[in-house]
Amino acid sequence: MPAAEHSSTDGIAAQVKLLKALPHLRSATLTLRTQIARTTWSSEHIATKVFFGTTTKTTAAAPPPSQPHPSPPSWGANKQNRKVKLRSAAAEFIMSNPEIEAQLAPLRERVQEQGNLVRDLKAKGAPELDVKKAVAELKARKKLLEDKELALTPSVVSFDRAKMEDLLKRRFFYDQSFAIYGGITGQYDFGPMGCALKSNILALWRQYFALEEQMLEVDCSILTPEPVLKASGHVERFADLMVKDVKTGECFRLDHLIKQALEKLSKAKEATPALQAECEDIIIKLDGLNKQELADVLAKYNIKSPLTGNDLTEPIEFNLMFATQIGPTGLVKGFLRPETAQGIFVNFKRLLEFNQGKLPFAVAQIGNSFRNEISPRSGLIRVREFTMAEIEHFCDPVLKDHPKFGNIKSEKLTLYSACNQMDGKSASQVEIGEAVATKLVANETLGYYMARIQQFLLAIGIKAECLRFRQHMSNEMAHYACDCWDAEILTSYGWVECVGCADRSAYDLGQHTAATGVRLVAEKRLPAPKTVEVSEIVPNKQALGKTFKKEAKNITDALAKLSLEEITKVEQQLAGDGQYKLTTADGQSHELGKDSISVKHSSKTVHVEEFIPSVVEPSFGIGRIMYSLLEHSFQCRDGDEQRCYFTLPPLVAPIKCSILPLSNNTDFQPYTQKLSSALTKAELSHKVDDSSGSIGRRYARTDEIAIPYGITVDFDTLKEPHTVTLRDRNTMKQVRVGLEEVVGVVKDLSTARTSWEKVTEQYPLFEQQEASK
Amino acid sequence: MPAAEHSSTDGIAAQVKLLKALPHLRSATLTLRTQIARTTWSSEHIATKVFFGTTTKTTAAAPPPSQPHPSPPSWGANKQNRKVKLRSAAAEFIMSNPEIEAQLAPLRERVQEQGNLVRDLKAKGAPELDVKKAVAELKARKKLLEDKELALTPSVVSFDRAKMEDLLKRRFFYDQSFAIYGGITGQYDFGPMGCALKSNILALWRQYFALEEQMLEVDCSILTPEPVLKASGHVERFADLMVKDVKTGECFRLDHLIKQALEKLSKAKEATPALQAECEDIIIKLDGLNKQELADVLAKYNIKSPLTGNDLTEPIEFNLMFATQIGPTGLVKGFLRPETAQGIFVNFKRLLEFNQGKLPFAVAQIGNSFRNEISPRSGLIRVREFTMAEIEHFCDPVLKDHPKFGNIKSEKLTLYSACNQMDGKSASQVEIGEAVATKLVANETLGYYMARIQQFLLAIGIKAECLRFRQHMSNEMAHYACDCWDAEILTSYGWVECVGCADRSAYDLGQHTAATGVRLVAEKRLPAPKTVEVSEIVPNKQALGKTFKKEAKNITDALAKLSLEEITKVEQQLAGDGQYKLTTADGQSHELGKDSISVKHSSKTVHVEEFIPSVVEPSFGIGRIMYSLLEHSFQCRDGDEQRCYFTLPPLVAPIKCSILPLSNNTDFQPYTQKLSSALTKAELSHKVDDSSGSIGRRYARTDEIAIPYGITVDFDTLKEPHTVTLRDRNTMKQVRVGLEEVVGVVKDLSTARTSWEKVTEQYPLFEQQEASK
Repeated sequence: MPAAEHSSTDGIAAQVKLLKALPHLRSATLTLRTQIARTTWSSEHIATKVFFGTTTKTTAAAPPPSQPHPSPPSWGANKQNRKVKLRSAAAEFIMSNPEIEAQLAPLRERVQEQGNLVRDLKAKGAPELDVKKAVAELKARKKLLEDKELALTPSVVSFDRAKMEDLLKRRFFYDQSFAIYGGITGQYDFGPMGCALKSNILALWRQYFALEEQMLEVDCSILTPEPVLKASGHVERFADLMVKDVKTGECFRLDHLIKQALEKLSKAKEATPALQAECEDIIIKLDGLNKQELADVLAKYNIKSPLTGNDLTEPIEFNLMFATQIGPTGLVKGFLRPETAQGIFVNFKRLLEFNQGKLPFAVAQIGNSFRNEISPRSGLIRVREFTMAEIEHFCDPVLKDHPKFGNIKSEKLTLYSACNQMDGKSASQVEIGEAVATKLVANETLGYYMARIQQFLLAIGIKAECLRFRQHMSNEMAHYACDCWDAEILTSYGWVECVGCADRSAYDLGQHTAATGVRLVAEKRLPAPKTVEVSEIVPNKQALGKTFKKEAKNITDALAKLSLEEITKVEQQLAGDGQYKLTTADGQSHELGKDSISVKHSSKTVHVEEFIPSVVEPSFGIGRIMYSLLEHSFQCRDGDEQRCYFTLPPLVAPIKCSILPLSNNTDFQPYTQKLSSALTKAELSHKVDDSSGSIGRRYARTDEIAIPYGITVDFDTLKEPHTVTLRDRNTMKQVRVGLEEVVGVVKDLSTARTSWEKVTEQYPLFEQQEASK
Repeated sequence: MPAAEHSSTDGIAAQVKLLKALPHLRSATLTLRTQIARTTWSSEHIATKVFFGTTTKTTAAAPPPSQPHPSPPSWGANKQNRKVKLRSAAAEFIMSNPEIEAQLAPLRERVQEQGNLVRDLKAKGAPELDVKKAVAELKARKKLLEDKELALTPSVVSFDRAKMEDLLKRRFFYDQSFAIYGGITGQYDFGPMGCALKSNILALWRQYFALEEQMLEVDCSILTPEPVLKASGHVERFADLMVKDVKTGECFRLDHLIKQALEKLSKAKEATPALQAECEDIIIKLDGLNKQELADVLAKYNIKSPLTGNDLTEPIEFNLMFATQIGPTGLVKGFLRPETAQGIFVNFKRLLEFNQGKLPFAVAQIGNSFRNEISPRSGLIRVREFTMAEIEHFCDPVLKDHPKFGNIKSEKLTLYSACNQMDGKSASQVEIGEAVATKLVANETLGYYMARIQQFLLAIGIKAECLRFRQHMSNEMAHYACDCWDAEILTSYGWVECVGCADRSAYDLGQHTAATGVRLVAEKRLPAPKTVEVSEIVPNKQALGKTFKKEAKNITDALAKLSLEEITKVEQQLAGDGQYKLTTADGQSHELGKDSISVKHSSKTVHVEEFIPSVVEPSFGIGRIMYSLLEHSFQCRDGDEQRCYFTLPPLVAPIKCSILPLSNNTDFQPYTQKLSSALTKAELSHKVDDSSGSIGRRYARTDEIAIPYGITVDFDTLKEPHTVTLRDRNTMKQVRVGLEEVVGVVKDLSTARTSWEKVTEQYPLFEQQEASK
């Protein structure tokens, strides 16, 4: 298998998918995940530069130093107060603008030229190293093109990350865990607002997927014994490369370290143009280098610890799973799961039975997973403990149609196909029905989920123009996967993969079947019964017992697991020298003769056939989605940069409504209390703010925590008919509503049964300005 | 501090509370938790015997063998098919029945006699060992009384645990994790029905507590660095005692092992009556024995490994937390949290600030915790990974009133007070208002939560007569706690502690303040400003820097943390020999002279005073509550022992409604689909069962998974006006409802807005029998 091409963005799901591919890659396997992660890092950096550069003239942030562990608390990367423009990535705009297209044309050509070279090399079976280098060059050219595209698209919104992070921290949406103890990098605690936002997103997810699609939702163990993760490939392959300071033991992620060192080297006064070019070339191609090549770079440039100047160890593979011991003996090794999916696969038989043996069916799981990142960064985007929502849709591998595909086939998605990526073209808007019909998307089930993912993301408030589906290129896809599309969301960190959607075929069930001997298969009725030849080993238990004593059981167990090919081999060998050498599960070898075993042939009529179901897996990284949503909904009031707020849709807003008495006049209290009880009864989360402070300041405080609606009790409320004002966070407009009606109105607004526009048509506007109160 | 008396049942919350007490107990601390757990085990056993014995004449199950790890999969303990009577524990019944009371009277006297002895011994400051022995005897007598009470109460329901467990497994409510890999004891995966039941219980919990009480809900990290759990006391004290087989390394929980060995010994043919009495005496008093005394028992009876006959090690403390390493260096030790509460305490400052500095406020958290039990058993009751829902209510220590206490003050609770336990009396029904007024329950806040806990448990379907609140006796309560009541639920395992409710005073915030130097305090305005004398250390930074170089910062940090008493000491010593010896955080000692530091006195006027808030903590073990609920709702149809079902209330039932077409006639399909869409739109989980099989069989299948309502589409549905039948699971009665109306009816039933009784008044009964279809 030739060297792999990798995504220039990565993510939870991509890591999982690639990880699962790893056991099957023949070359450079151990650096694969390293490469992915490395790419992200560099793409973040380059993205920051080009993405934000042109309009604001701000130079790119220097790459943050590799964070040894434990490191001082750092809350999100690149914290300098930099004001930037977040741009729309709508390919439509670019494609329809001839001037911009003219500027991009040469870049597109360079990508296409390189894409063709890669195709040619592969076609003629060129040496692996040549292909790998060509792919690295292709990715570098793609990146230049993409950055230019972003730079030329008009900005849609002004965004200041430092300001947003300050607000998130100040109002405790989330913050670093155990901060009073110095904190731990890559772990976050969600405060009241973050927790409510997260649980509202998850509730909506359950409604969109588990309920709507009648999925089987499960809740499996986090602690996972080693054999399960051996079978899945995680124990052997789920690793990043690192080096250690030989004296202090501090650890550095190898890719981060090299990049930082070479950048420093090429910026030094004494650097010659030749050296600069050399460094730049290595940085671009870091992706393509394996463990040995990276070690050579370390040696060639004599790279030392950036903190102490001490020597560094050789590169070491560091497994990213948290290990522990289950039970008191110290003999049962376990890990914290690195993904929730394996819990579903190992329960496949029970779930199939629950579904009365019928396919297709989908299983959903929401839960925490853990990765011991070497140096976590980028706030919620790369963390050590995170919530995932995963779906495993099991179906017949030959029939991947979907009964509800018709419902969504006109949905338009921004697709960035592998072909377009190779040819230097942009993403384009395609109806999913057409994409499946033209085989751009492999099958209806995959297409169905892609459309549903988009519907969900838009429903929670992700901006449509900042969402695309990027197809994995053939070489970054696991070889067992038929097709894989990542939902990527544009943020100030660049395009971040937030949901993976892959057709994973029969890989996982096959692996667990092989490891346990438990057949994780489904059955389907044959069109007509058929007669099949059956070959089986018949052990002579008496003879085995006599010869092998306690070992006899292991031997019969091993015999029962032999495949048809192996049985044929047994038969041949018994017919030959009369002996068959069997290896049992505990690794022992035993010579078995004709007196101990024989092979029996018979025929039987079968009505059903067994098959390993295919799996389509949409996998949601909830923290990444939340972070993107916060970025997309962050706003400052025109003319008042200090009044920031989040335009979170009422459906997911942490608190639906505030109640503000105009002052602390005690006459208002009975009304405030009555409203609070009524809102509780209607299951509407709300916040009473009866503190002193002008009404305007209190509104601003509720805006900061994204409360979409505010009820004010004022002196008119005391008069009959009792009325209150209802204020909309986004427009700051208010209407006057009857006291008895207002809870119903807020309920309808919060559940998207009505809109603010409709409310303003129904009720009189209340014109008094916030500032004047 | 004299020896502790312990609960005869224990639970998650009890473990936590006791654990937190441990650092402060002066004697027998290390065996404390061991003792608790041991008590449970023995109480389970005795409970099984007496509790189930009299009616059915079934002898008690032999205690299951100590489970070495890894052990063969065992799904719940005591699996033999035993039919038993679950009894009502209503104290009312007993108290009002003079015949029963006559039988209990001598037992009550014996308890009271011993209770008085314990009081006397404590009063006169008797030796610790004497008190400990007296307490052990008191508990043994209490147990006999309680078992007799249970045996004499009339049975309320027939319950067959094996049959229920078989159903739970067969329909995958939950089952052992990783079973295809041989399984792991003490870990369970929740299948679709278990997961839905759990998430409905949690949703209701959120509504009852987080929403209704406007709590701040948070979501904190599971992985916790060591210093946090050192401060909380878990690192040092959260341990059970075990012994290992010296050859195989197999581990046994010491209490289980001794009990089993002595029981075997006393049952042997050659056992003399004296030996039998001796063994019985030790078993009763196992609770009171410390590590050395247990080691002596091991030696005296020459107890060996029950599996191999090999020698055993000395008792070893085994910490029950799962350890791991955070980050790649191997230097940062972390644990999986053993409770969620610590995440709340370490965020106290942020949360207080979020609440604008005001007290009281309550913080809620739902999440998983982990305990590496030596030999987990009893199904969901003692597991290694479990979901907790905890509340920490922070309030002013002198004002523990609750603004909403009036709402619940007439709620009647079954209270089993410490006094009654000491005096051999039963639990009694008391209005919570009265209980607080008479100081039986320490304060309004504690009483408020007890009432709310009861309301919640009854709402999800726990039987009122199987619920009691047991007060911790003074010696089993942590010394910092003012009062502690456990909500215990009666199951076939005996009384199981499912929710703890404790007034924990200022302990945790104090511990974390001491460990970090970050003052976790609140402020309150003084009635009048006052002038206070302030003493502070003034470091001479220049001098310190010159003398101590790099250490100077550590020294100034340490100086800043000195308490008032310590500052006085500094002043005295400087005035004396002119030197003060300071120990910095890293353990170094430094001599500081008058040239480096001085003490400054000043006075200032203060308007507020700082205080450490008190904490009232209701802590819910969700798995235990779920298990109890399943037991309480398990039923078999009269006259058909094979047709079992769960009477789970619609509010928490995993699926609200089934749709069953009478046959697979295609004419029914459009109606089935229309109903399914309408139910989805109404956010009602439902299951379409259009498989072949009689309608009666399909009903039975939906009954098994607790679906409360079933809609049948039949030939009358095809005619105008279109109607369907709606069936109630519990009564098996059906009504005929219009097709357009039925979803609304199911919605109202599922959200408890109407009842089945009202529905039968509103719609005509449909009389056709299930069997006849």
